[in-house]
Amino acid sequence: MVQTNYYDVTDWHIGNPYQDIGEVINSIITDIKNKQSNKDINSGGKPGAVIYIPSGDYHLTTQVVIDISYLKIKGSGHGFTSSSIRFNTPLNEVAEWHEVWPGGSRVLIDIVPKGTDDESVSAAFLVKRDGNPRISSVEFEGFCIDGLHFIDDGLGKNDPENTYVNGKTGIYVASANDSFCIRDMGIIYAEHALTICHADALTIDNNFIAECGNCIELRGMGQASKISNNLIGAGYNGYSIYAENYGGILVAANNIFPRGSSSVHFSGVVRSTISSNRFHSFYPGMLVLDHNCSENSVLSNHFLRDHEPWAPMQKYSNGLDDLYGLVYISGTNNSIMANHISETIDTRYIQPNGAKPVIIRVASGKGNYISNNHIVATTEPDEEQATSASACFSTQVGALLSIDRLEALEVVTVQIDKSSTHNTILDSGYDSQVVLDRTINAFRATPKIGF
Amino acid sequence: MVQTNYYDVTDWHIGNPYQDIGEVINSIITDIKNKQSNKDINSGGKPGAVIYIPSGDYHLTTQVVIDISYLKIKGSGHGFTSSSIRFNTPLNEVAEWHEVWPGGSRVLIDIVPKGTDDESVSAAFLVKRDGNPRISSVEFEGFCIDGLHFIDDGLGKNDPENTYVNGKTGIYVASANDSFCIRDMGIIYAEHALTICHADALTIDNNFIAECGNCIELRGMGQASKISNNLIGAGYNGYSIYAENYGGILVAANNIFPRGSSSVHFSGVVRSTISSNRFHSFYPGMLVLDHNCSENSVLSNHFLRDHEPWAPMQKYSNGLDDLYGLVYISGTNNSIMANHISETIDTRYIQPNGAKPVIIRVASGKGNYISNNHIVATTEPDEEQATSASACFSTQVGALLSIDRLEALEVVTVQIDKSSTHNTILDSGYDSQVVLDRTINAFRATPKIGF
Amino acid sequence: MVQTNYYDVTDWHIGNPYQDIGEVINSIITDIKNKQSNKDINSGGKPGAVIYIPSGDYHLTTQVVIDISYLKIKGSGHGFTSSSIRFNTPLNEVAEWHEVWPGGSRVLIDIVPKGTDDESVSAAFLVKRDGNPRISSVEFEGFCIDGLHFIDDGLGKNDPENTYVNGKTGIYVASANDSFCIRDMGIIYAEHALTICHADALTIDNNFIAECGNCIELRGMGQASKISNNLIGAGYNGYSIYAENYGGILVAANNIFPRGSSSVHFSGVVRSTISSNRFHSFYPGMLVLDHNCSENSVLSNHFLRDHEPWAPMQKYSNGLDDLYGLVYISGTNNSIMANHISETIDTRYIQPNGAKPVIIRVASGKGNYISNNHIVATTEPDEEQATSASACFSTQVGALLSIDRLEALEVVTVQIDKSSTHNTILDSGYDSQVVLDRTINAFRATPKIGF
Repeated sequence: MVQTNYYDVTDWHIGNPYQDIGEVINSIITDIKNKQSNKDINSGGKPGAVIYIPSGDYHLTTQVVIDISYLKIKGSGHGFTSSSIRFNTPLNEVAEWHEVWPGGSRVLIDIVPKGTDDESVSAAFLVKRDGNPRISSVEFEGFCIDGLHFIDDGLGKNDPENTYVNGKTGIYVASANDSFCIRDMGIIYAEHALTICHADALTIDNNFIAECGNCIELRGMGQASKISNNLIGAGYNGYSIYAENYGGILVAANNIFPRGSSSVHFSGVVRSTISSNRFHSFYPGMLVLDHNCSENSVLSNHFLRDHEPWAPMQKYSNGLDDLYGLVYISGTNNSIMANHISETIDTRYIQPNGAKPVIIRVASGKGNYISNNHIVATTEPDEEQATSASACFSTQVGALLSIDRLEALEVVTVQIDKSSTHNTILDSGYDSQVVLDRTINAFRATPKIGF
Repeated sequence: MVQTNYYDVTDWHIGNPYQDIGEVINSIITDIKNKQSNKDINSGGKPGAVIYIPSGDYHLTTQVVIDISYLKIKGSGHGFTSSSIRFNTPLNEVAEWHEVWPGGSRVLIDIVPKGTDDESVSAAFLVKRDGNPRISSVEFEGFCIDGLHFIDDGLGKNDPENTYVNGKTGIYVASANDSFCIRDMGIIYAEHALTICHADALTIDNNFIAECGNCIELRGMGQASKISNNLIGAGYNGYSIYAENYGGILVAANNIFPRGSSSVHFSGVVRSTISSNRFHSFYPGMLVLDHNCSENSVLSNHFLRDHEPWAPMQKYSNGLDDLYGLVYISGTNNSIMANHISETIDTRYIQPNGAKPVIIRVASGKGNYISNNHIVATTEPDEEQATSASACFSTQVGALLSIDRLEALEVVTVQIDKSSTHNTILDSGYDSQVVLDRTINAFRATPKIGF
Repeated sequence: MVQTNYYDVTDWHIGNPYQDIGEVINSIITDIKNKQSNKDINSGGKPGAVIYIPSGDYHLTTQVVIDISYLKIKGSGHGFTSSSIRFNTPLNEVAEWHEVWPGGSRVLIDIVPKGTDDESVSAAFLVKRDGNPRISSVEFEGFCIDGLHFIDDGLGKNDPENTYVNGKTGIYVASANDSFCIRDMGIIYAEHALTICHADALTIDNNFIAECGNCIELRGMGQASKISNNLIGAGYNGYSIYAENYGGILVAANNIFPRGSSSVHFSGVVRSTISSNRFHSFYPGMLVLDHNCSENSVLSNHFLRDHEPWAPMQKYSNGLDDLYGLVYISGTNNSIMANHISETIDTRYIQPNGAKPVIIRVASGKGNYISNNHIVATTEPDEEQATSASACFSTQVGALLSIDRLEALEVVTVQIDKSSTHNTILDSGYDSQVVLDRTINAFRATPKIGF
């Protein structure tokens, strides 16, 4: 088989992929560049290549640097397993386990963080190229990137594997880019899984990115991108999905589970849409639109906020109290329509003590339209605490399913802060549940019985 | 090429994949386990492997048993074709056909059902492992599983290929599992296509599962899973999508066509969401939420119910009458918002005779929120009946497109049974179309002309 | 490795794939047919095959004709880059570029258009087969089809690379077909990217189809298909997504950007749904439902219309004025619910001069339900014009993000033409913003402050 532009990392003559896949991939990239040196020969010339990573454990000590378009790096398995459960299970139990590490086509980040704030330095994969055109159509598909361990964060908890801190980044795209794809990947135990700056027409689809400090971060400025069909869950101190200064993002059909400090956080994002997602969080501030986010829509999503049921993580939170807003909006002309929002929590966990939790809060801006949202607020009896870490699954599902003994909880379904005006609130709470100044906002209460 | 963890079933030294691919795959799994015997060597050790099934017809007489994580079984084509049309076409016509069987990377289930109720026994692929951790990241991708024939169901119709019964199961996952993926598969003519028990963070995406007794069944208990972008259609006596005792499921962007007894059936499911789907059915009970389903949302879906237009199947139905509810809810605090629902049926097919069909029915529970649904009910002149089975396509599309002669049909758009209270019904039917006790439910009628 | 039904175009003994991949693929198809000549041997016989196109530039001068089911043609990269930016960049700048052509597994359409109206003649890939059954499960996956150049359109603008005209088609499916998949493809600079007639259960998912005259066209009649998760953007004179006489289409989670003459155009389409998409356009008529489109739903989408910010394209438009309707409906019993619609435009671009733009317009038909839509209309100061073509990205994103100086623009949020009756308009505009005859339509205005 010829396959000139097809490379298998286990079949390359330079480097040892099991010891340092970074050296191997960089060497392959050099080979591609050498072979594809003429950019315009017979209407082609630089088609790129595919680099295949078979199932296996591949240490990476040298950062991969990608500066060619049309490179696809492809594996045969996203290889996720819960390292968090493992590291919270007693060693004597783990000794009996079938396997203890993630798998698939697995790249182990062995880069030692440099102690700098520049997270690109410790990224396993760095995409960076100057000049024109923007680097295009780099694709990551079907492999696993594993940061292996978190480390002590110096905050005195002596709980290193639960810090979500290790200075490691999975993929960092530094340069303006077009038509990238991140598909079918697994990323785990990286402080930053995926940081992409200056994206245009980016696809992030069908990935499993969890147990990372932060999962997806769109930075710089960009447009017209799509985050869809992913399973995502960051650490309590990080972002599940974050974007800043982007327009035209579509966030659809993701299942975002705890425990990210937020499910989606937009900062200065405009004309973007968040629809048909399922969000689950253990803290307030699940959805944050701040720094004058405008003309975004949040449509037909399901939100659930309850209390952390798993013992090893109950000491952590994102630090926000229940007056912050489960959905927090600072911006103009946004739409919050047709969402279901469930909050269920034992009153003793509410902060500040005795407060009525705020569900949707508009903190500033004007012209927001909040309509046809169904907000269900209940108290639950205290959840069973997992006595063993490996009972995480049954504990979580048990908590999720325990609805029989729920009682109504008083909440503020919508609060419009005084500094915000000209908003329209329709069918999103009874008269007694909505806090706003009716002389500067439009309001129609959800009808009550006998209306 | 080395590819230590890459296996091609046609290039393996044990067994003959064309005669029994089950023996071959089990032998490969044994080889993987032998090679990957150390679970913690240099921070890895059990990465799993990929087993490739090239395009071809592979009989399976030995059940594949998967008990390792990170195994991917991958083919090169989902290979769907309509066996139902074929088996309802006269033999002399079929004699002229180009091909008669499904194709792609096709596994033929030749297991002889054991006459037991335990469907796992006759599954082509069984995933089962005791102990910890839960088996993780097994992936099925891009191949076809074909049960070949249905058999007589003993009900006296003498129509074996239309029974949707044969005791065969495509994939059965028996043990608690994490981060599984089922992608780009085709499954056909199995009584149970995909049965997954105790799933966490499961992905079922972009599959073609049709002409099976039941398509997707999530059993046991589980959470945080995603069923998206699939084309699905079960038999008249089975489930297209069924789940029980799960929380946090996302069912999004599926196109579910007839003739399943239901499009989606949740039993005891909570805090899950069904959004942006297209549902088409020939019977009442398209969407069923029963056994105290709570805090689920049904958002922005398109429902169509009409009468079976295809002659060979007109004798079958799911047995429910039109008072059952096209959408049936027994549970608490669910949301039904922003859906379009079309029912179009000749009055002579309505059961009981002369009844007003019920579109959304809340049979028990409380606190459900039914808002902003557009319900279109029309009678259609009797559909043309297909004179030949191979005209199935043109008959179906013709029926679908025939809207010119429609007339309004009287229906109950929303019915709240007496045992259900504290529901809120807004903008989902005129005053005359909604049946409920206003002293125990909140109601705002859709405005009429002149309001 | 045996891989009997696996073909690599670079490893085939007939033809040269770099000079004419069409000859190679046709020769492979002939080989498959020769090998798979018995349609019913041991319950199988014609499983099809996979044809692999590695990364590379492959000229195509001979049309590929596919007449077998279960054929998958698969590449290793969608290879998109913006040829539009390139062709609008001065040659001296392009001389410094890293690469100038699209890449990945790239098929270059070198077919010389025949000057006929039958676009199938100049398609790179033609699927056509007579007889029964319908051709099934042909799959196109992961490669690039590039038409290379547009040509002068005879309209006197002397701007050939911006005409979106070249008589070339990427993939044309002429015969009735079942269960086809088009996935992960890139198509660029074709006058027609993807034209599919008579489809049943078609999947078009996760493709990048842009800078084509027309992107996706579903013609003839068909049903039960899915267009999801795509990035799409046609030329100013063509369709991004077009369908005619289909039922049961699901258009979900697509990000459709400028500059198509429309984002979605349905003609005579029924019982279909458009949900959770992000649409961006520079012209009126973003969404068109005409020729008696009925019982369709448009749910939870985000629309943005602004003015073309990029200098080279500012001379073009789709020719419609602002009274046409940003959303235009001619049909019966459709639902337009829970959408966010932003229009932001400097008043001097509004046509006719001084007109109030119409956002949602029902031109004919009855029984449409337009409810809970949030329409934001603003004027923007004139956008910065890109001084260099390669500044397209920063110009576009800059325009998108510039919201600080916006002021309210007077628009008609909903207009029901006199010939249309029995529509219901709820919460989609203030009393002063909606134009309709209340004696023949139902109306509830969005509440204003003090309501």
